[in-house]
Amino acid sequence: MASAKNEASLHQHDLQGMPSRYRTNLIHCLSGFKSACLIGTQNTKGRTNLAVFSSIFHVGANPPLLGMVSRPHTVRRDTLENIRATGHYTINLIHRDIIAGAHQTSAKYDADTSEFEAAGLTPQHSSVIQAPYVAESWVKTGLTVREIIPVKSNGTWIIIGEIREILCPQEAIDEAGYIDLNSLGSVTVSDLYRYYLPHLLTQCEYATP
Amino acid sequence: MASAKNEASLHQHDLQGMPSRYRTNLIHCLSGFKSACLIGTQNTKGRTNLAVFSSIFHVGANPPLLGMVSRPHTVRRDTLENIRATGHYTINLIHRDIIAGAHQTSAKYDADTSEFEAAGLTPQHSSVIQAPYVAESWVKTGLTVREIIPVKSNGTWIIIGEIREILCPQEAIDEAGYIDLNSLGSVTVSDLYRYYLPHLLTQCEYATP
Repeated sequence: MASAKNEASLHQHDLQGMPSRYRTNLIHCLSGFKSACLIGTQNTKGRTNLAVFSSIFHVGANPPLLGMVSRPHTVRRDTLENIRATGHYTINLIHRDIIAGAHQTSAKYDADTSEFEAAGLTPQHSSVIQAPYVAESWVKTGLTVREIIPVKSNGTWIIIGEIREILCPQEAIDEAGYIDLNSLGSVTVSDLYRYYLPHLLTQCEYATP
Repeated sequence: MASAKNEASLHQHDLQGMPSRYRTNLIHCLSGFKSACLIGTQNTKGRTNLAVFSSIFHVGANPPLLGMVSRPHTVRRDTLENIRATGHYTINLIHRDIIAGAHQTSAKYDADTSEFEAAGLTPQHSSVIQAPYVAESWVKTGLTVREIIPVKSNGTWIIIGEIREILCPQEAIDEAGYIDLNSLGSVTVSDLYRYYLPHLLTQCEYATP
């Protein structure tokens, strides 16, 4: 492990002087390991879309809410457009056996191509959510939009969704409600390209002073 | 791995009927593996505070922005109060050697106790950021607040901060700007109690159709 003696100290002018790609890679790593998910949506004509996201976060359990960040509206953003149009989307955790296909959805396809086909993944329809799940995912959440919040600082959007449906193998949910993400092969990412498999280190207790 | 045949399908009425703790645990797992961080702050008198968070997310690289969620303002929330008062905070990635101390900061201490002492961690001061870093952390980011956004759906707050300082071992940053979080022992969490160590599975290429 690195020694604290070699700690680099980078400031605003250092960041501004970095090549754009270098800065992007560095900034991505600062938030640590993130969830790797596929967001499923469809437009009002039923054309499906699938996109990889690493900005999913927990907002609250009652009501059950999850958040995600969508990039600025400067290029075609089918996921955000579809969520605005239908009010529905799905979050599908990526596991070790579907990384290659999941990552492929980050390519820029034309509007006539469904990323499901390109990724070799199967849309799974729901009677509750007007958006496709990824059949191959083990942990799937169907949501309806509660808020779409503008982030003024850079023109991104934060989407807050309420959980309406959960699809998950029954045997992976323990008696306390925890899903064994480890046994399901769920992965995490440090940046836009590297996928990692976590192994349980320790289970802490409820902390008291 | 579980078979899709046993996929449980849970809906709103199932969630509403669950014991509160069970629902909380389940909902926490749906967002997958999350970053485990310590947020360092201080009040206007310089009293330090440290709290564990798992809701850090990437917002953008230019300007360099990170987001986090703070729980509703129904109990004493020193982190949010301090950020409002000083405009500064630090994000310190938790690694395998400081899990026990980091987790201990989630206990409810009285206002006179610094979580640094309780956790056995060392405040590290900065000439740029009016908030303490965790000396023992390997990846430290100092931020100033850009926006504090209310989430109407449940009364939480989303804090958007701009990165002003980065402290990280120079040898852990590669020529492309990536930080090798793996070599630094950075951990991830699936819920409020379980800490995992990720191992690199695969590094994908930039995807093209």
